Amino acid sequence: MVSLTYSLASFLLKRALPGGDLYDDVPDVSMPVDDSLEETDPVTEEIFSSWALFILLFLLGAALWSSYFLQQRRIKAIHETVLSIFYGMVIGLIIRISPGHYIQDAVKFKSSYFFNILLPPIILNSGYELHQANFFRNIGAILTFAIPGTFISALVLGIILYIWTWLGLEKISLTFLDALAVGATLSATDPVTILSIFNAYKVDPKLYTIIFGESLLNDAISIVMFETCQQFHGKANAGVGSFFEGIGLFLMTFTISLLIGVIVGVIVALILKHSHVRRYPQIETCLVLLFAYESYFFSNGCHMSGIVSLLFCGITLKHYAYYNMSRRTQIATKYIFQLLAQLSENFIFIYLGLSLFTEVELVFKPMLIIVTFISICVARWCAVFPLSRLMNWVIKKKAARRGIVSVPDEIPYSYQMMTFWAGLRGAVGVALAMGIQGEFKSTLLATVLVVVVLTVILFGGTTAGMLEICGIKTGCVDESGNNSDDEFDIETPRVSVPHKRNDGPPSQLYRDGFRSGNASQTSLGNSDIMLDDEIASDDLTGTSSRVSDAAANLTFSDLLTSEDHGKWFTQFDEQVLKPVLLDSPANQN
Amino acid sequence: MVSLTYSLASFLLKRALPGGDLYDDVPDVSMPVDDSLEETDPVTEEIFSSWALFILLFLLGAALWSSYFLQQRRIKAIHETVLSIFYGMVIGLIIRISPGHYIQDAVKFKSSYFFNILLPPIILNSGYELHQANFFRNIGAILTFAIPGTFISALVLGIILYIWTWLGLEKISLTFLDALAVGATLSATDPVTILSIFNAYKVDPKLYTIIFGESLLNDAISIVMFETCQQFHGKANAGVGSFFEGIGLFLMTFTISLLIGVIVGVIVALILKHSHVRRYPQIETCLVLLFAYESYFFSNGCHMSGIVSLLFCGITLKHYAYYNMSRRTQIATKYIFQLLAQLSENFIFIYLGLSLFTEVELVFKPMLIIVTFISICVARWCAVFPLSRLMNWVIKKKAARRGIVSVPDEIPYSYQMMTFWAGLRGAVGVALAMGIQGEFKSTLLATVLVVVVLTVILFGGTTAGMLEICGIKTGCVDESGNNSDDEFDIETPRVSVPHKRNDGPPSQLYRDGFRSGNASQTSLGNSDIMLDDEIASDDLTGTSSRVSDAAANLTFSDLLTSEDHGKWFTQFDEQVLKPVLLDSPANQN
Repeated sequence: MVSLTYSLASFLLKRALPGGDLYDDVPDVSMPVDDSLEETDPVTEEIFSSWALFILLFLLGAALWSSYFLQQRRIKAIHETVLSIFYGMVIGLIIRISPGHYIQDAVKFKSSYFFNILLPPIILNSGYELHQANFFRNIGAILTFAIPGTFISALVLGIILYIWTWLGLEKISLTFLDALAVGATLSATDPVTILSIFNAYKVDPKLYTIIFGESLLNDAISIVMFETCQQFHGKANAGVGSFFEGIGLFLMTFTISLLIGVIVGVIVALILKHSHVRRYPQIETCLVLLFAYESYFFSNGCHMSGIVSLLFCGITLKHYAYYNMSRRTQIATKYIFQLLAQLSENFIFIYLGLSLFTEVELVFKPMLIIVTFISICVARWCAVFPLSRLMNWVIKKKAARRGIVSVPDEIPYSYQMMTFWAGLRGAVGVALAMGIQGEFKSTLLATVLVVVVLTVILFGGTTAGMLEICGIKTGCVDESGNNSDDEFDIETPRVSVPHKRNDGPPSQLYRDGFRSGNASQTSLGNSDIMLDDEIASDDLTGTSSRVSDAAANLTFSDLLTSEDHGKWFTQFDEQVLKPVLLDSPANQN
Repeated sequence: MVSLTYSLASFLLKRALPGGDLYDDVPDVSMPVDDSLEETDPVTEEIFSSWALFILLFLLGAALWSSYFLQQRRIKAIHETVLSIFYGMVIGLIIRISPGHYIQDAVKFKSSYFFNILLPPIILNSGYELHQANFFRNIGAILTFAIPGTFISALVLGIILYIWTWLGLEKISLTFLDALAVGATLSATDPVTILSIFNAYKVDPKLYTIIFGESLLNDAISIVMFETCQQFHGKANAGVGSFFEGIGLFLMTFTISLLIGVIVGVIVALILKHSHVRRYPQIETCLVLLFAYESYFFSNGCHMSGIVSLLFCGITLKHYAYYNMSRRTQIATKYIFQLLAQLSENFIFIYLGLSLFTEVELVFKPMLIIVTFISICVARWCAVFPLSRLMNWVIKKKAARRGIVSVPDEIPYSYQMMTFWAGLRGAVGVALAMGIQGEFKSTLLATVLVVVVLTVILFGGTTAGMLEICGIKTGCVDESGNNSDDEFDIETPRVSVPHKRNDGPPSQLYRDGFRSGNASQTSLGNSDIMLDDEIASDDLTGTSSRVSDAAANLTFSDLLTSEDHGKWFTQFDEQVLKPVLLDSPANQN
């Protein structure tokens, strides 16, 4: 009996204590275990992977809680992504200075995790939540910024880096192709941070859509450019011919990827129409999700762009298949895609922060980092401003041909400035930089990583101020994506609480709504908060004058750019595609 | 121009073709690439991981589609899990005979994937969907089967295996401890297959709850037993003292794990009550999910049982936190947990089928497999029948003490038989078997894998028949878990379609409902279908006489087992816990 008590007590000490302190525990357990044992013993491995996952989820929870806190207190100066990176860095530092390498290995940024797990939900949700009318209305500007813009940006960045390394101040020498590859990794702008800020401010839908569309598509373009550079790596110097080959390659990839996505979306619509799978909504929801992911992995597997496929698969699913789904699946897919996207978005920035410390092979060259940071600003400038002028010029020419003399700019200067400012880089760049080959691998990866984090902190942190300086219209009650789930409100008496809907039970809802209203009205004095209250009161009184302004503006620009294609497709869609693909055309609205 | 066309054409051939044929592609690309290159080139790795994921998701889609097809055609002879294993085996064979090892490596069963990704959603959803009243009413029988039952089963299996290997017919020699470890891996019964069959048949809720609870909890017990055996591995022979130490260890682990889960659930309830996070339902949903997972990983990290923690965290979340959530989060968490669980469940069986062929180091010993298969039946028999008799005896004694002379069995013979039959083994066993150490590792893993697949095919395939032979009450309109999402119906006019709800638009719903009704009435002649129609008509006319039967039965057995604890807790819950933890106590139920 005594021995039993003793063994229980020793067990308690042995087992229950590790839970007491998170970080002290880690080295204690890992130190006595040598490398080979750690590899072979699944129980130890299991414990460490549990701790690694616990830490990551804890960070994710902390980031989400901060996000709630910032939104609740209406703090706009600090953005949640900056906090996510910061949390990641702090924990990364702690893990780095702790002995034992298992957790450090487990939480390291892996490009395959990024491309296979974290990226797809974000892209899928973007496609699914996309305001289709706005997107296709501005498709000209989006494609212009995305395709030639990214080419220009990568080229300018590549040239500057090539010249800098050629000067030999930091004993780095890159071939032009390698410099171009780095240029490509740093030309993918990030769709996450900027859009969450734009959502919070309810920025003018046109600017929102252009920046959103560009940042989604230029990821795909950077990836294709980077892979093309990698294919030429080590081969004889490529000439002008390969430049055109590259463009041809890209256009081909883009078109095929788009087709894959659209075809998968149409297949889902047809399956849902011609089967009774909607009677089993759980299976139906799974199948929709699986098909979407299939388009991504199939496309990637075929050396195409999974991002483009998944984006257009999401758009097609929403445009057709959505109306063939059971009500439960409609709601479930929306909620699930949103949840997965939100988790991925937050996680990516934690991951970036972590990898600054947990990535062991980084070689930091301060001068190179500064030069690269300046060059990405220059490259972005070269991409945004000339292309905007070109578009404005084309619009003016078109208008003149029709006899209209005075026409407002397609992309006014304030939009150009915001598009420039919105060019912060994200995790796609880092994930690509993991694939850089050659002897300066570690230096280039470190440079890309630091530059990405810097852009997020600097540009991301100042976007709110920049919106004011540029005088961009905010507080637009837009229907683009972020609010489109309003149609799924289950509570009948809906009160618009600033920024986000409240789905609580009605009594609770009113109480909270009024309480927060009072709270915000008493805390004046900051212009941000003032602006915000104005939006809030707009929301509450239901005034939507800004919408009609925005709509008028959009219709006008629409009139000048792509009305023919638009009309033709809309007609074809209504008369041929929808009757074939939809179960009951009357359903869709 | 010609060269551009040529390069585009060659590009087309080079890139577009791989997509044409899935399996031919794999060896073509992988053959020329040697091992070291494959490791270092992230682009190639990316392509292969895309194909691996494509194949896995394709299999998952096929399994789900089969499940729909089987349900739609009311085919009960073949079960979907058997098909999942079969699909996995076919694709596993194709991957095995194709040259190139990358995909084979990528789709290999990894115990860390199983424990960290696939298992948690199933456990969480089980806890969340659990019919709490039924579970706690039968907690005595559940714990009896789960704790001593699993001990007995592992011990009997260990002894038989030890004797068999001691005979030396197949040149295997195991220590008793190793034999016991194998016994522990094969004592974890699988909650997935049997319960999906029970759900389809709407089996008597008491039997359902007992088998469900047992299969959930005995996973935890097997894991703890297995890990305890592994700790003693290689040490001097353990005596009777370590047997008691093991029991003490287990009870300690169980209690602490349960507390971790309950505490996390209570923390979530309190956070939701005392914050306004419900105003941001997207963040709220993420936080609930993250907290639940944290309980699992924290518990595992502390060498406790994550399964027990997560199960009780799910139960606590549903019992308290659920009523503090916004409506959107209530719906979103239910749908998301269900989706993740469904995907994991289907995936596990595909994974098992695949690993029969993709696991390279398996050594099959036919005699050992047959002996093991027979012994697991013997071991299960030894666990179920004596314990059931014991329980019946205790009930009779208790009743006699109160002066009641004639009392029905707590666990009648038909229940005993079904509990025995429901003892098919699942992926937990295989995942544990991956951790077996020593020179006969590959043989034991192969044995466990084959035995698990055999039990699923044999017992899983014959459960439907066995239900009839035992005369188990089916067609009970139970409220236990599987149907509890009825409260979330969004469509107003709800028509009960057999087995599953139909959430389609009303017009569609009526049409489909009647069409399927007609279809089933014309296809008579099979007793299964007859039975099913009977259920359907029960459903449609709203007769719920069976429920009241079941309820009366339950209340009676309840009266005899644990009414005091039950009443005491219910009172404490209503008067102390709910006012503290819930936002507005009137809200709940």
